[in-house]
Amino acid sequence: MALMTNARTVKIEWGDCDPAGIVFYPRYFAMFDASTTALFEAALGMTKYQFLKRFQAVGYPMLETAGRFLVPTRFGDSVVIDTSLSKLGRSSFEILHRLTKDGELAVECTETRVWVTRDPDDAERIKSQAIPDEIVSRLQR
Amino acid sequence: MALMTNARTVKIEWGDCDPAGIVFYPRYFAMFDASTTALFEAALGMTKYQFLKRFQAVGYPMLETAGRFLVPTRFGDSVVIDTSLSKLGRSSFEILHRLTKDGELAVECTETRVWVTRDPDDAERIKSQAIPDEIVSRLQR
Amino acid sequence: MALMTNARTVKIEWGDCDPAGIVFYPRYFAMFDASTTALFEAALGMTKYQFLKRFQAVGYPMLETAGRFLVPTRFGDSVVIDTSLSKLGRSSFEILHRLTKDGELAVECTETRVWVTRDPDDAERIKSQAIPDEIVSRLQR
Amino acid sequence: MALMTNARTVKIEWGDCDPAGIVFYPRYFAMFDASTTALFEAALGMTKYQFLKRFQAVGYPMLETAGRFLVPTRFGDSVVIDTSLSKLGRSSFEILHRLTKDGELAVECTETRVWVTRDPDDAERIKSQAIPDEIVSRLQR
Repeated sequence: MALMTNARTVKIEWGDCDPAGIVFYPRYFAMFDASTTALFEAALGMTKYQFLKRFQAVGYPMLETAGRFLVPTRFGDSVVIDTSLSKLGRSSFEILHRLTKDGELAVECTETRVWVTRDPDDAERIKSQAIPDEIVSRLQR
Repeated sequence: MALMTNARTVKIEWGDCDPAGIVFYPRYFAMFDASTTALFEAALGMTKYQFLKRFQAVGYPMLETAGRFLVPTRFGDSVVIDTSLSKLGRSSFEILHRLTKDGELAVECTETRVWVTRDPDDAERIKSQAIPDEIVSRLQR
Repeated sequence: MALMTNARTVKIEWGDCDPAGIVFYPRYFAMFDASTTALFEAALGMTKYQFLKRFQAVGYPMLETAGRFLVPTRFGDSVVIDTSLSKLGRSSFEILHRLTKDGELAVECTETRVWVTRDPDDAERIKSQAIPDEIVSRLQR
Repeated sequence: MALMTNARTVKIEWGDCDPAGIVFYPRYFAMFDASTTALFEAALGMTKYQFLKRFQAVGYPMLETAGRFLVPTRFGDSVVIDTSLSKLGRSSFEILHRLTKDGELAVECTETRVWVTRDPDDAERIKSQAIPDEIVSRLQR
């Protein structure tokens, strides 16, 4: 069964770049975080705000992420981020992002995230939880 | 003579928001910086990278900016930023941004910026410079 | 009655700077936000996490802020931010930040903020609230 | 021969955190970037601005980085980042960061970076370069 994919175009802004004139790499991770959310929003037809509320979840924080930076990008560049769900577990999932510039792979990033809710025994803590069935089925297509 | 205006839609992301669940206000200034650049890019038909290179400029750093925050926005919101050049001086210019959410004014921001180039006597310093004629004429319409 | 003041030293980082090699101005607002918090933490002898919890508050979002940028700063610079409470109202307060580099004023910023709690009638909304007496007395000295 | 290590304490700020109340993970990468720079600054006794200028370098952009997030941290937390140079090649080097909170490992991050200068044949491009001898010797101790 195929898993959800999504693509979006991102404009690299002046404020994303550092004194070398290229993207300050932590900004790529912010773009990838938004791309993972865009995949969920496309699958569910709801904004993150809406689906967190509906499923009473806190989010899907990162367990592990790794990025490889092959080609620098700079302000003014329009890049495409192709995002695919590569593995769907019970409470965790894996994502692959491929950022291309003029068709050339510039950055590749993998993520392992976990679905979390508030800990019912301690509202200040979060705990992993099975991804709701409705979401699981929407992430497959 | 009318001055340039531009509008763009911005998606508020999870990573733009703070523990109160609303936009961390410094992120609005990053959005407004990109909106000012979008106005120049629309006027000139070039990316900022291209026009800085063509006119051998360093940028248009901020002299003064003021923001008023009327209605909070949060992740998932799509907002519109209407940007207008409100005054065009010899080397400086003023910008007004109006950010609306569902048609309601949420944030208003004014900017005074200055066009700068490298100081020919000291490459580490920047200095204000008259805005090039070609840009001045493109910013009027 | 004198109002609270506080000072802290901030190191300007590479990632705070833009392709012109100077601070990307939205980053100054993030520094000032942390400086306002540092003033409250110094006054109350608690972290923001602790005092928000104790007083069941959501925070002190910005109503209006204005910055004047006089001298650029760049990565490697150590700057001092002097923060003073300039006005203390019932639910709102005003702050002045003066950022200096080698004793020279580089950036000046004013803020008007409001103390907010969750709206008891709608947990998704925030509403202004009188600043708790204990905090008011600690902010005076 | 032992390689350079460095440690610094970082205060987690409100603006580093997301609506879940914990650090928005791209901000960790910004902290780690500053920690790598702090290691170089400690080794060389110069700011990054100074040593880039002295060695006519553009920086040490990231080739690969991977982070593991074990324990969430939140605003108000003081964390320690222990940074060690784990491998020193001709033009590239590897870094390990361990971020602890109250002595407990919260985040671990590895980096592979490369020393770069302007390409003499094309000022808009950067190219890898052997790390200068003086820096190599200072990074060993």
